[in-house]
Amino acid sequence: MEKTIAVLPGDGIGPEVTSAAVKVLKLIARRYNHTFKMTYGLIGGAAIDALGNPFPEETAEACQASDAVLLGAVGGPKWDDYPSGNRPENGLLAIRKHFGLFANLRPVKAVPALLGASPLKEEKAAGVDLMIVRELTGGLYFGEPKRRTHEGAVDTLSYSRQEIERIVEKAFELARVRRGKVTSVDKANVLETSRLWREVVEEKKASYPDVEVEHQLVDSCAMKLITNPAAFDVVVTENMFGDILSDEASVITGSLGMLPSASIRTDGFGLYEPVHGSGPDIAGKGIANPAAAILSAALMLRYSFGMDTEASAIEEAVQTVLEDGFRTADLAEKDERALTTDEWTERILEQ
Amino acid sequence: MEKTIAVLPGDGIGPEVTSAAVKVLKLIARRYNHTFKMTYGLIGGAAIDALGNPFPEETAEACQASDAVLLGAVGGPKWDDYPSGNRPENGLLAIRKHFGLFANLRPVKAVPALLGASPLKEEKAAGVDLMIVRELTGGLYFGEPKRRTHEGAVDTLSYSRQEIERIVEKAFELARVRRGKVTSVDKANVLETSRLWREVVEEKKASYPDVEVEHQLVDSCAMKLITNPAAFDVVVTENMFGDILSDEASVITGSLGMLPSASIRTDGFGLYEPVHGSGPDIAGKGIANPAAAILSAALMLRYSFGMDTEASAIEEAVQTVLEDGFRTADLAEKDERALTTDEWTERILEQ
Ligand SMILES: CC(C)[C@H](C(=O)O)[C@@H](O)C(=O)O
Ligand SMILES: CC(C)[C@H](C(=O)O)[C@@H](O)C(=O)O
Repeated sequence: MEKTIAVLPGDGIGPEVTSAAVKVLKLIARRYNHTFKMTYGLIGGAAIDALGNPFPEETAEACQASDAVLLGAVGGPKWDDYPSGNRPENGLLAIRKHFGLFANLRPVKAVPALLGASPLKEEKAAGVDLMIVRELTGGLYFGEPKRRTHEGAVDTLSYSRQEIERIVEKAFELARVRRGKVTSVDKANVLETSRLWREVVEEKKASYPDVEVEHQLVDSCAMKLITNPAAFDVVVTENMFGDILSDEASVITGSLGMLPSASIRTDGFGLYEPVHGSGPDIAGKGIANPAAAILSAALMLRYSFGMDTEASAIEEAVQTVLEDGFRTADLAEKDERALTTDEWTERILEQ
Repeated sequence: MEKTIAVLPGDGIGPEVTSAAVKVLKLIARRYNHTFKMTYGLIGGAAIDALGNPFPEETAEACQASDAVLLGAVGGPKWDDYPSGNRPENGLLAIRKHFGLFANLRPVKAVPALLGASPLKEEKAAGVDLMIVRELTGGLYFGEPKRRTHEGAVDTLSYSRQEIERIVEKAFELARVRRGKVTSVDKANVLETSRLWREVVEEKKASYPDVEVEHQLVDSCAMKLITNPAAFDVVVTENMFGDILSDEASVITGSLGMLPSASIRTDGFGLYEPVHGSGPDIAGKGIANPAAAILSAALMLRYSFGMDTEASAIEEAVQTVLEDGFRTADLAEKDERALTTDEWTERILEQ
């Protein structure tokens, strides 16, 4: 197959980890007879510096002309005091909205070799294999009015029925090819949008009789992610709850540096990026862990290009390299020699 | 001193644990020469059953005539399918709003004897001693419009500057008599209300030069509560974020069954209740852990009646009884004999 991939390295360690992921994608292309054409664009702080806009027109066009987008990370102390609206993270919000990437998928899977690094007792973290499906283009993030008022300020949490339907369907479909369970998270005892959300889930479940459904209140879900995270399969929720719960979930297994994410819509186009940030403290040193970026590339192969075999090959390589004890600095134990980004990527390519 | 306390036992294990707390309050009154007059009222499911309203007029009047309110718990499967608006938890929302109880305080402190029950590694949970200060009468819970719309549904997150000011001041005052640190949690990179929130915190901090202030985004706070909970002292945030984060925080030390809460306003009047729920599965068996209710009574003595010595006496008794190895069923190890609610309360009274 021939595919065009827009690569947006972004800020901090973004360029280092995307370059590792690009190497892996190139090897996959050779090995499986695909052609991946990479085009590059600016986003976040890098784009503000060069063009005064965190999501410039040029970048939008490059993405538009591509089949999928690979993003590194955005942000850093340099831009912390920039006016809201023109900060690196506005680039993220803008690209999501511009392309209608309404479904944010964040798989969290315990890696047995890394359980020692989990803040949870190992028996709690072992066996975690969940996927947070977060609505990404609606809710409090974008609702109007959103402004200062005479006496204070206001944001608006609004959802149309159709916005809820499509994300709930996505969650059911994902559950079908996983362990067949959906936990829908809301605050239906307080919010009107949550009551509509619950109604939609109840309606949709009739079309997926093979999927088990439970409703959970967001506060109680925040507890259960810690006390019994292995009980979850697919967790579906609105934008703001998903922001909080997916970050909470990202630290329970001790492998935050390994977590990929996908932001997709229904036609296969998608944006793939590591869950971790731009790591300003280690940027430029060549020591960042590229696993999350590499695994994000794997998700791209799976969700945007339908290349399941190729995606699994990458995921298995990462697993094997970790089991063989190769670690970047973030994961190395005290007396272990840590590999650089390049060295670790080499190990992956060898696999 | 002479004080009137409105006792609202509520549902499930509520009556059992409040009765234990009342015993402790009576002993305190005898020992320290106070007069506590108890009046009783219905709330939650019990009130729906008897009077068709989860927060009836009679109860409002009893509370109005009191100096503080002690509440057990509300809710249970029986009322799960009642129409929203007439469910047990509406009683809670109504009493908070009716009395303007805008500050919800939830202390979470690791009990060394219970660290084995924490889902976190013991070294992570040890040393946790934080207090979540949640705004309780504003934000998404009460903002208008809150309704179905033509195409979906809408809730409104609105805050007046004055609502933010008073809760932020409360947090600063609490930090002063604790370890002098406030973490203000918002989503200022996305929400207009959060930007106002941050502005108010920045303004107020000038009046509390002895308090150290940091801002944290809600998603990142959800992570840090797990990866480094001992780093927090006072955490102040808006209603919905506080709902999620305080429940998350409540499970990190393994002592959820022990956690009290206070919902107060500026004049000293307040509502005190355990963080745990109504425990429908164990209700009526006399085996519930009354510690959270007893510690809630201690908070009442401290915050509503200014009886610091008396409050500390209760807290120390609970600590000692636990260290001596006395446990209710929720905390007992496999081969330990668990004490009943009454037996455990006896131990506290002896102390
Ligand atoms: C940077 C921020 C706007 C963004 C969000 O809240 O969506 C980030 O936290 C994320 O989760 O991708
Ligand atoms: C029952 C519910 C409305 C309530 C809330 O969300 O405030 C509860 O979760 C709490 O935290 O006291």
